[in-house]
Amino acid sequence: MNSRSTDIDGLNAALDGYLAALDCPEALRAAMSYSVGAGGKRLRPALLIAASGGDPDAVPFACAVELIHTYSLIHDDLPAMDDDDLRRGKPANHKIFGEWAAILAGDGLLNLAYEVMIGFCAGRLEPRFLAAADEIARAAGAGGMVGGQYADMESERVVADLSRVLYIDARKTGALITAAIAAGAIVSGAVGEALDRFRKLGRKLGLAFQIKDDLLNAAGDPAKLGKPVGTDGAAGKATYVSLAGEKQAAADYERLSRDIIEMIDFLPEGHALRDVVGRALFREH
Amino acid sequence: MNSRSTDIDGLNAALDGYLAALDCPEALRAAMSYSVGAGGKRLRPALLIAASGGDPDAVPFACAVELIHTYSLIHDDLPAMDDDDLRRGKPANHKIFGEWAAILAGDGLLNLAYEVMIGFCAGRLEPRFLAAADEIARAAGAGGMVGGQYADMESERVVADLSRVLYIDARKTGALITAAIAAGAIVSGAVGEALDRFRKLGRKLGLAFQIKDDLLNAAGDPAKLGKPVGTDGAAGKATYVSLAGEKQAAADYERLSRDIIEMIDFLPEGHALRDVVGRALFREH
Repeated sequence: MNSRSTDIDGLNAALDGYLAALDCPEALRAAMSYSVGAGGKRLRPALLIAASGGDPDAVPFACAVELIHTYSLIHDDLPAMDDDDLRRGKPANHKIFGEWAAILAGDGLLNLAYEVMIGFCAGRLEPRFLAAADEIARAAGAGGMVGGQYADMESERVVADLSRVLYIDARKTGALITAAIAAGAIVSGAVGEALDRFRKLGRKLGLAFQIKDDLLNAAGDPAKLGKPVGTDGAAGKATYVSLAGEKQAAADYERLSRDIIEMIDFLPEGHALRDVVGRALFREH
Repeated sequence: MNSRSTDIDGLNAALDGYLAALDCPEALRAAMSYSVGAGGKRLRPALLIAASGGDPDAVPFACAVELIHTYSLIHDDLPAMDDDDLRRGKPANHKIFGEWAAILAGDGLLNLAYEVMIGFCAGRLEPRFLAAADEIARAAGAGGMVGGQYADMESERVVADLSRVLYIDARKTGALITAAIAAGAIVSGAVGEALDRFRKLGRKLGLAFQIKDDLLNAAGDPAKLGKPVGTDGAAGKATYVSLAGEKQAAADYERLSRDIIEMIDFLPEGHALRDVVGRALFREH
């Protein structure tokens, strides 16, 4: 078993433990557990733990970002939002448990992320832990992921250009990926310029990740490419790929990937983040 | 201007400040601000500040409980949940801003509560502040308010008896009221048995508050009284009043109120919590 699977096994065990410890209706626990266990790649927690250099104290924060990511997927899939029936190849939460249960499962998971972080910080009163929680909290909220999802939903009815799509991507996907990397670095003791390098890496990786995702979606659904967007409510959401074109987007992705590989040169040889970033860039999503 | 209006003015100014500081889409800020500003009585933050003895350091925690309470109302009113068009005599959030915006406004408010508490704790690394945040976080989640709302929604389709209604009331309404009082006491330095007295007071007050609310609702809608409940999906939710009957519920409310007035005797003469509890018990809701 390599260090990666050990990390992820430990993370999954910690997530299961937090869910099991809740004194809540069993059916609510089932709805929350379904999406936490539904085959996510654990990219964000893997980035966080790797950025911390494998510090065991990073695990509660890694769990928190995964809980936040999972809640956001449940709420994004709701009929009133993106109305997706499938998530990670399985029925979306609301398709199994119903709409009100999915809303509450999402609320419960978001809250649990903070129960986990605050509970840990209360037991270990260290500035680095509060700073890590602060980084994650700001990234998850209206100034980050929630605001990005809002702007993304808005773009179904407003004219979108590339700068707007970059605004959305930086918040909806980029903010939590950046915060995961930064929070891990903070747990390892990074501050000031060293920490800013991690944040910059996170922003580039978040954008690369989103473009790759858009490219894969477009490849899976040719209708998404070149579709006129933003001119009426029915046109669907603009993406980096739909606006820049597939060729330009692929070229931009290559350039970003090279930038990122150069950027991680500041990390010591053998640092776990090199490996996780590489996998994030070159995997098939 | 008495101390109460000063407290609430300061609270409202702090809430406005947190909302104004968010770097988010303006329309999202508008949806979040609408419900925060929509004429709430600020009972929970008033209890928290009073329990702290008026400590200015209690204000961020008071704002957090109000943000959590407000998000829960937005989500409870959604078409998939209680489907309420009105809240506090004004259109529900989703009636003004639409369903997806209301979901995200709720998510943004819940997250903001934690941004506020964690940001404050990160700047003032004191055990009492982390303990207050921990008290609130546990009360708000699946083990508290979210679980209570889940059980309440479930009770539209399961047979409900008084013990189940007490389970729901203790979580859906009681948990956050109890946490508000306890968190205020924690900020003032209460621990151990002294803190437990505040928690016990909170639980009694939460139940009294819910019974009073049910009585007022039943008085406003005689059809709610004596309606058969819990036997089929169409019968609506059971309440303390519908199960115990109005006369018994009113008697129980009187008994609880007397208990509470006796209980607050442990507080020093002139303690602000005496006044706020009295208002909570005897006001017209």
